[in-house]
Amino acid sequence: MRKPNIDSPIVVVIGGGFGGVSAVRALAKAPVNVVLIDKENHHLFQPLLYQVATSVLPNSNIAFPIRRIFRDQSNAYVFNEEVVSIDCAARRLTFANQRGAHFDYLILAAGASSSYFGNDQWAQFAPGMKSLDDATVIRNKILRAFEDAEAETDAVALQEHLTFIVVGGGATGVELAGAIKELGVDSLSKDYRRFNSKNARVILIEAGDRLLPSMSESSSHASLKALEKIGVEVRLNQSVTHVDATGVVVQGERINANTIVWSAGVKASSLGASLGAKLDRNGRVLVEPDCSVPGTPNVFVIGDMASMKCAKSGHAVPGVAPAAMQMGQFVAHIIAREVRAGVRYAMPTSNAANTTPNVNVTNEAQIPERGKFEYFDKGSMATIGRAKAVAEVAGLKFHGLIAWLAWLFVHLILLVGFNNRILVFMSWGISYLTFSKGSRIISGNPPSRVVSPVGSDSGTSLDQRRKAVEVLLKRM
Amino acid sequence: MRKPNIDSPIVVVIGGGFGGVSAVRALAKAPVNVVLIDKENHHLFQPLLYQVATSVLPNSNIAFPIRRIFRDQSNAYVFNEEVVSIDCAARRLTFANQRGAHFDYLILAAGASSSYFGNDQWAQFAPGMKSLDDATVIRNKILRAFEDAEAETDAVALQEHLTFIVVGGGATGVELAGAIKELGVDSLSKDYRRFNSKNARVILIEAGDRLLPSMSESSSHASLKALEKIGVEVRLNQSVTHVDATGVVVQGERINANTIVWSAGVKASSLGASLGAKLDRNGRVLVEPDCSVPGTPNVFVIGDMASMKCAKSGHAVPGVAPAAMQMGQFVAHIIAREVRAGVRYAMPTSNAANTTPNVNVTNEAQIPERGKFEYFDKGSMATIGRAKAVAEVAGLKFHGLIAWLAWLFVHLILLVGFNNRILVFMSWGISYLTFSKGSRIISGNPPSRVVSPVGSDSGTSLDQRRKAVEVLLKRM
Repeated sequence: MRKPNIDSPIVVVIGGGFGGVSAVRALAKAPVNVVLIDKENHHLFQPLLYQVATSVLPNSNIAFPIRRIFRDQSNAYVFNEEVVSIDCAARRLTFANQRGAHFDYLILAAGASSSYFGNDQWAQFAPGMKSLDDATVIRNKILRAFEDAEAETDAVALQEHLTFIVVGGGATGVELAGAIKELGVDSLSKDYRRFNSKNARVILIEAGDRLLPSMSESSSHASLKALEKIGVEVRLNQSVTHVDATGVVVQGERINANTIVWSAGVKASSLGASLGAKLDRNGRVLVEPDCSVPGTPNVFVIGDMASMKCAKSGHAVPGVAPAAMQMGQFVAHIIAREVRAGVRYAMPTSNAANTTPNVNVTNEAQIPERGKFEYFDKGSMATIGRAKAVAEVAGLKFHGLIAWLAWLFVHLILLVGFNNRILVFMSWGISYLTFSKGSRIISGNPPSRVVSPVGSDSGTSLDQRRKAVEVLLKRM
Repeated sequence: MRKPNIDSPIVVVIGGGFGGVSAVRALAKAPVNVVLIDKENHHLFQPLLYQVATSVLPNSNIAFPIRRIFRDQSNAYVFNEEVVSIDCAARRLTFANQRGAHFDYLILAAGASSSYFGNDQWAQFAPGMKSLDDATVIRNKILRAFEDAEAETDAVALQEHLTFIVVGGGATGVELAGAIKELGVDSLSKDYRRFNSKNARVILIEAGDRLLPSMSESSSHASLKALEKIGVEVRLNQSVTHVDATGVVVQGERINANTIVWSAGVKASSLGASLGAKLDRNGRVLVEPDCSVPGTPNVFVIGDMASMKCAKSGHAVPGVAPAAMQMGQFVAHIIAREVRAGVRYAMPTSNAANTTPNVNVTNEAQIPERGKFEYFDKGSMATIGRAKAVAEVAGLKFHGLIAWLAWLFVHLILLVGFNNRILVFMSWGISYLTFSKGSRIISGNPPSRVVSPVGSDSGTSLDQRRKAVEVLLKRM
């Protein structure tokens, strides 16, 4: 492990997700100082966010302090700051606190957030699921809906408390819809007295003609069958045209629901815009085949923020964790090779902010060939409720229990941190065996809205008591 | 287990803490309908809150859904509502949502919150530690302080980030101060590059002349020695006279600190005031020896909300979990006996809200003797940092490792829920063996304030890079 050195270049990595963490790791032995900057203090295992949202896992089981990951990497520094803009010409970042940092190389890996396709006002009613706080908000909403149902005496309002709409049929939507239904059917079914939580209505809406569009048609079909079997209402080829506090409009039909979750699309971090490069319609930076920003060879964009096609297949590189990790390693190796070869890119000498970056090297060094990024698809998978999944690995397709076991195994292996692996395994084991969810805690959020009476409001004396008991017993 | 019955009286219990949960459980076989109302959806194991605040345990490990506790108790109903006022004469509660509920018997067990002795403006700077959300706020503050320290280049500001003040030397203050110091010394010491977290300054301020005033003098002495040994600065006989965003004034001396935690006092829930009974200076209701409100035999106050002296010893009943649990069982048995004996208290017949409650029974039944509540002290204990504690059981005093093992055992046994016990045990084991804290996650809170530069702001070109690296390496 190389010690930090005052003459070594500074490589700044923005974002401690799969891409950023891979890049920093791959630079461990390079003669550089690596600075990882993230606005959160934790690396998040996003594929399991839906398990936090449905009370299977506590927040901290799928998050790991970024700083802890690089404890033993002596050339790595971690800062918990929010970057608000990037000046490629001056090679400087600006933080939310007005201070900043210098870079020689930059790897931009700030990820993506939920996209509402121009209807950002829907976000308040239908939260997306990209961060730990998002998942906590959704968990609070789901648990609160069941609590409100228990206190409800009006049949129509009760139905609204018990209707859960998930918009978007990708992996997140499929897994979340299955897990909410399972929560009502298995975990909560004995806990409420005045309604049957098995009757909770879970509706999954997908605008396209199949679920899991990134997987094969047979996996789409298997996931549809599995969801329908456990009672999820799947609506294909239907678009949501309106969202408000009490429901959605889908294909002209109004559906009232108190819980709506958005998993229909993502847009790249807005930091891409400050690079001055061309963006695609999702805000992703159109990068060169080596992941660099056109005209700025010392700045790379990777993961969900990069828009590129595989050199060989011509397919777009998907916005998934393995692609981000592979890109991180790819650009780290480019940087390590160039630094070792003595390459230094020229910097503007004055009035840095307004000049065009100089792409020439300052010295006589030969720039090593960078090559082109090639995505290697290791397979993909999604769970559906309890003990079922679909998986595709190396052209093979698995459904059902075996796919679920593969899913469990792969996700445990990929989790960062020994502690987390043990605790997640224990939580899953307990959850699976006892049907109970260990993290059914409403926290940090006030009740979402005014709910209904527990007792009746009229009558006095003995009459009053009898009425109150009647209301209590009503729905048993 | 008795089924709910329309002719059975309604016993409302407000508060799902130790007292309320004990009371509901003790009524399982009584011919009553029990309604437990809490503004949170979870029972909280408060003695372990400081472990959430110091990242040892995730929130959900010390909280358990109240509803789940009573899943199999068929005469129990649980509602997640906030009670805002109580009308004893009309026997009605009002909720925050304007609706309400009727009761025949009421057990008020809404607990206590932090008291700032008339300086409520200090609360924003020095959060107390009574709820799960409080503990999350404190955890965020502590972790953020270390993150800010890493980004700091000014020596004076660095010292402020690394100063932690705990006000109040009771069990909570002692345990929290020890755990913060341990966090800096053991868990974080290898994770930061630009400062030594072992130098974190933890100051425990107690206005009285000894720590743990509710325990014996020898335990006070042992805890003082143990804290000083691990490097906590303990200040006895010193009062905090001012608190603001950047520090405190204690005995005329200004100490700057970015993290201040308040554990100096509690005040009872303000619901006690709506009973119309006399309150002590901490807002607790002065109850009869049977825990009932004077003049209102069908309304009881228990736990941290009740002010009473033991009938035999004359000592005040302490505000601790065992006392609340014993009171809950005591009043549950009074109610069960009276209901079985056919006792019904008369209700006002009209204009209920403004009449004096009628304490006569409506029927010919003989009221069974209620007896007087007697607190049985099973002992008390507190941990100090890693593998040390003080404990007093049945007149015996233990210090050190054996007390700590007893502490672990007792706290595991008392935790509600099989899942929680396993997961807490695992988390403790991992934390103890690896020195690492599994829950070091900053969540739900924006950075507390503007912090300092990572890179320098002046210079260009190669000069600029060298300066930036110098700043990075500065504190290594």
